[in-house]
Amino acid sequence: MVSIQQKRTEISSIGEFGLIDRIHSLANFSVDDFSLHDNLVKGISDDAAVFRPTPGKLQLITTDGFVEGIHFDLTFTSMKHLGWKAMVANFSDLAAMGAIPRYATLTISLPKKISVEMVEELYSGAGLACKKYSCLLVGGDTTTSIGTMMLSVAVTGEADERHVRYRDGAHPGEYLCVTGHLGASVAGLKILQREKERFTDAQNAFTFQPNLEPYAAAIEKHLMPKPRLDLSKILTEQVKIGALIDISDGLASEVHHLCVSSNAGAAVYEHSIPVDSMTQKIAAEFSEPPTDYALYGGEDYELLFTVSDQEHEKLDRLTNDVTIIGRMFQRENGIELVRESGEHEALRFGGWDHFKPLEKS
Amino acid sequence: MVSIQQKRTEISSIGEFGLIDRIHSLANFSVDDFSLHDNLVKGISDDAAVFRPTPGKLQLITTDGFVEGIHFDLTFTSMKHLGWKAMVANFSDLAAMGAIPRYATLTISLPKKISVEMVEELYSGAGLACKKYSCLLVGGDTTTSIGTMMLSVAVTGEADERHVRYRDGAHPGEYLCVTGHLGASVAGLKILQREKERFTDAQNAFTFQPNLEPYAAAIEKHLMPKPRLDLSKILTEQVKIGALIDISDGLASEVHHLCVSSNAGAAVYEHSIPVDSMTQKIAAEFSEPPTDYALYGGEDYELLFTVSDQEHEKLDRLTNDVTIIGRMFQRENGIELVRESGEHEALRFGGWDHFKPLEKS
Repeated sequence: MVSIQQKRTEISSIGEFGLIDRIHSLANFSVDDFSLHDNLVKGISDDAAVFRPTPGKLQLITTDGFVEGIHFDLTFTSMKHLGWKAMVANFSDLAAMGAIPRYATLTISLPKKISVEMVEELYSGAGLACKKYSCLLVGGDTTTSIGTMMLSVAVTGEADERHVRYRDGAHPGEYLCVTGHLGASVAGLKILQREKERFTDAQNAFTFQPNLEPYAAAIEKHLMPKPRLDLSKILTEQVKIGALIDISDGLASEVHHLCVSSNAGAAVYEHSIPVDSMTQKIAAEFSEPPTDYALYGGEDYELLFTVSDQEHEKLDRLTNDVTIIGRMFQRENGIELVRESGEHEALRFGGWDHFKPLEKS
Repeated sequence: MVSIQQKRTEISSIGEFGLIDRIHSLANFSVDDFSLHDNLVKGISDDAAVFRPTPGKLQLITTDGFVEGIHFDLTFTSMKHLGWKAMVANFSDLAAMGAIPRYATLTISLPKKISVEMVEELYSGAGLACKKYSCLLVGGDTTTSIGTMMLSVAVTGEADERHVRYRDGAHPGEYLCVTGHLGASVAGLKILQREKERFTDAQNAFTFQPNLEPYAAAIEKHLMPKPRLDLSKILTEQVKIGALIDISDGLASEVHHLCVSSNAGAAVYEHSIPVDSMTQKIAAEFSEPPTDYALYGGEDYELLFTVSDQEHEKLDRLTNDVTIIGRMFQRENGIELVRESGEHEALRFGGWDHFKPLEKS
């Protein structure tokens, strides 16, 4: 048990995505004979894996982990919200593939402070999300924990082969579009964190009133996000889009993923990024640029996709919840942010990378 | 943020299985319209969930969580072994259904002490297990952790509809059988824990030699268990068995699960429980009854099943790795352990329940 000195690389030095790259090559390396898996359509490298067990509907699987102190703070996240969010983060991955959720498993590790009633609250939130999006909880695992609480959800999905979309389908010349508004989730989180600090500093806990009401919409977007299964259906069934990905880590990071997968460049127009008025108001209170919330905030669970001029015209008649935020270019053009001033700069790659905390400029 | 006093039930007061019962009813409660899920064959209540996306091969999903300090101790578990074990625990759940593993996702939360090389070791162990049992790692999630390390694996499986077996298929009169030997895993763990203590107490860490070599087989059974996909294939394809379940929590607990699901009683003959000579030797060193290791130890990943006299004769010609350990009875007979002395007693329900530590008698 005397350990020999071995090479040690800190995970923070290569970041989450660097780590995923290394894992990706190891996972492929472990397979001798891919013919055993000839019904695999898409492995690691997208929002979910896709396989074709029998001709007909494709099956998908995706998973997400949630760690106390990293992804959630139990002082202002109810167990019900936590259960909801853990499920919909996975549903959003399926929406990003043009699929619908079918069956889910939920694994939880519970420290002593968690009571049975709290677990029931968690499941009632997860159940609410399942009910709303027609998924069924079919299994899971419960264990105790000597540290923090953790959740891990896996969801299978189903899709018609003609409708599945990947993040590598973008072509130069296409518009880059997003659904809904961005940045509201992190704006809501900032309010919750501020009020928690005010509570901690308060002289009298019993008379303290957190100031949350005016920010309710942003807080709801943070605690109870809605996956865009509605728009996923329109985008994949009624028009012909290029690439599709969900925005879980912040727009900047997802634009990079989409471009790298598609071997393409892009320009994002800062003035076109849709940020709602409440998020703008909150950003102003914190003296921060609201588009930074959209670009680097994360957890909005909207969709990012590419579409040709012609198909966009069709789409425009079907929904008004889509905004053009940029255009796809050849890879040589790089990935650029065009500031409101007209200046071009490289779009900084960053986002919700847990291993390499974002240094806000 | 001033919390109102609510009812609080400690999880330890109802145990893991009590918690699962409550979750089960909540999960069913959350569904309005089961017709949306008419391709679900088996939900919560077995080793894996089963569904039929299109006519033909059934699909399965199972998941397991592994928490540092509860399921593994990094002072004597290498990352490679940990990766292996996390995968095969799930493969064993599929073996317990008559299915084979197909696609896996692995979610890990990593505290700062874990380096990139350690993560790579973990994946190489997981990859080794995937390679050996023809599974493909297709996704996952990596996050940081401020507490302990945790892993969560989900695996999809595939089975021919004619071969799937459940834990509720037992009938009175059938033999109760197990594959392989039981108790070796916990015997190996006890040696690892003893040598860790000796190391901690040692005056000189550099000259300390752990005494592991003589116990290698038991230690390997603990660190690198083999799921019984080999026997699962024989049991489900070549003979007609009743109920099938894997032994992950100790024989006693699995016999109870099988009986309750099948609405039956059973008698387990203590003298018939297969315990290998090394496990007997280790139990003797600790002055503990070796059959307690089999009944309450857990993590053996062998299979427990029921079979008629006639089918057992067939089975006997196909393998010599199966032992009759008891017989199924009507529910009214209860679930009994028949001691070597001939005395009958209720088979104490217990096992690897993380929320209610087993008090060894």
